[in-house]
Amino acid sequence: MHSSLDCIPCFIRQALEAARFITDDPAVHEQAIRAVLRMAAEMDLSQSPPWMGQMIHRHLRQITAAEDPYRAAKDRFNQLALLMLPDLRKKVEAEPDRLLLAARLAIASNVIDFAVNGSLLEEKVRKGMEQTIQKPIRGNIDAFRQAIAEAEKILYLADNAGEIVFDRLLIEQLPRERVTLAVRGAPVINDATQRDAKTAGLHDLVEVIDNGSDAPGTILTDCSPAFQRQFNQADLIIAKGQGNFETLSDVPANIFFLFKVKCPVIARQIGAEIGSLILRQNRILETVRTEEDGA
Amino acid sequence: MHSSLDCIPCFIRQALEAARFITDDPAVHEQAIRAVLRMAAEMDLSQSPPWMGQMIHRHLRQITAAEDPYRAAKDRFNQLALLMLPDLRKKVEAEPDRLLLAARLAIASNVIDFAVNGSLLEEKVRKGMEQTIQKPIRGNIDAFRQAIAEAEKILYLADNAGEIVFDRLLIEQLPRERVTLAVRGAPVINDATQRDAKTAGLHDLVEVIDNGSDAPGTILTDCSPAFQRQFNQADLIIAKGQGNFETLSDVPANIFFLFKVKCPVIARQIGAEIGSLILRQNRILETVRTEEDGA
Repeated sequence: MHSSLDCIPCFIRQALEAARFITDDPAVHEQAIRAVLRMAAEMDLSQSPPWMGQMIHRHLRQITAAEDPYRAAKDRFNQLALLMLPDLRKKVEAEPDRLLLAARLAIASNVIDFAVNGSLLEEKVRKGMEQTIQKPIRGNIDAFRQAIAEAEKILYLADNAGEIVFDRLLIEQLPRERVTLAVRGAPVINDATQRDAKTAGLHDLVEVIDNGSDAPGTILTDCSPAFQRQFNQADLIIAKGQGNFETLSDVPANIFFLFKVKCPVIARQIGAEIGSLILRQNRILETVRTEEDGA
Repeated sequence: MHSSLDCIPCFIRQALEAARFITDDPAVHEQAIRAVLRMAAEMDLSQSPPWMGQMIHRHLRQITAAEDPYRAAKDRFNQLALLMLPDLRKKVEAEPDRLLLAARLAIASNVIDFAVNGSLLEEKVRKGMEQTIQKPIRGNIDAFRQAIAEAEKILYLADNAGEIVFDRLLIEQLPRERVTLAVRGAPVINDATQRDAKTAGLHDLVEVIDNGSDAPGTILTDCSPAFQRQFNQADLIIAKGQGNFETLSDVPANIFFLFKVKCPVIARQIGAEIGSLILRQNRILETVRTEEDGA
């Protein structure tokens, strides 16, 4: 999807929050916000919001000389999630529809997002996850179940650290030998990289690759050729998070997007309230299928 | 006061809202937001937020060739206020402390602000005013009462159209022969100009002047020499609205600021919640007085 004019004030706010998260130096905060204002003034709006996120966070890492400024926060949320994991796994195992509850928890954990909420506290994640156990998913879980059963090669695109630990619950319900998990190729905000996948124990379950990119989403043209090959070979993509939705919603592939709605632009676009848990099949493909069905 | 880095995302959002209010043309929206991003990137942060408001709205009027784009909205809110005025005046007259209720209503009516809320509806104003009848003011009404009694020349700085009709209630409680009312010198957002003062019937009550400026506040260096003279000669200034607070809070004069807190930056600065009704005497003068008292 392209960026909306409404994304622009939000980019500026997020850049300021991120600069403040990374350093206490007000001169750097000012330098960062002025640079982002200049970038936004010239931005190509046909690019998706994570494209701008990539530019902003590259610049922040550069001016602060911090290669992975969210590393400590990522570790903290991974540890919190690992503490919560055994109890939640028991709940999933006790459930008649394990896939549904695991998907719900994996989507709910998408709340762990420092792009949208720079001052996120562990307590909020804990409470949010507990409240979400009963919250309905907007989407067709049976279509998702069927797509999993039919797929020979599943590519699971992770989103954030912390969240990736909860992704385990869902990955444990998938046919693991057919699953490849992809993380970001380099640090950006609190997005998960290889290290987070390892901490979550996912290397023991499935093949883990990285996408070669430092965008907070999946900008295919920015990903490595190896990742692009995996993407093209997969007959089912499970894409976590709003950033992956924003970057892949126009790609004609068999994608299920699992995310929490975090902003009014997305809420309006998909017709759901902020906070909704979304399981959404790629519309483009649906149209193609419908046409084929009708042919 | 200077502008905070937190003001910047808000400038961008307000500029976009204003562009959408003025025209339906998305090309103009984009042109406006890009121009404002460039201005903000180079902004001198020692300037107050209304300085940026002035730049933004000058630019919007220029690119849309609309001299007074909020004229219809201003008329609408003036008419709404005029319809509500007789009942509210009865309430004030039935009150033992008329000044207090009149001040409360005048401050409450500061909600009519298209800078902060571009999609304000009449219904919200009506409800807000009704709910406010009982809401306390944060500030010292007796100090205000005494300042009025002592002053020989009172300069009342109006803020917005609509609101200026409710200012009548307070002005009716003042020694009118000693009061001069000042409005903006040219249209900016929905700020009151001479025409609104006339519609509110204020020319029949007090002398009305304009400040010669199109800033949504009172930037003294941008005001006409005639206004500056009046400002310097007044021994009490009653300044309505956040824009007047933002531009005059550092000026060493006997000023009472009457406004509704509308943003987190101001809330933090004065230690009050958003939505609070504020009656605040200029701190600088208080300090000066204390020092003199101690000498």
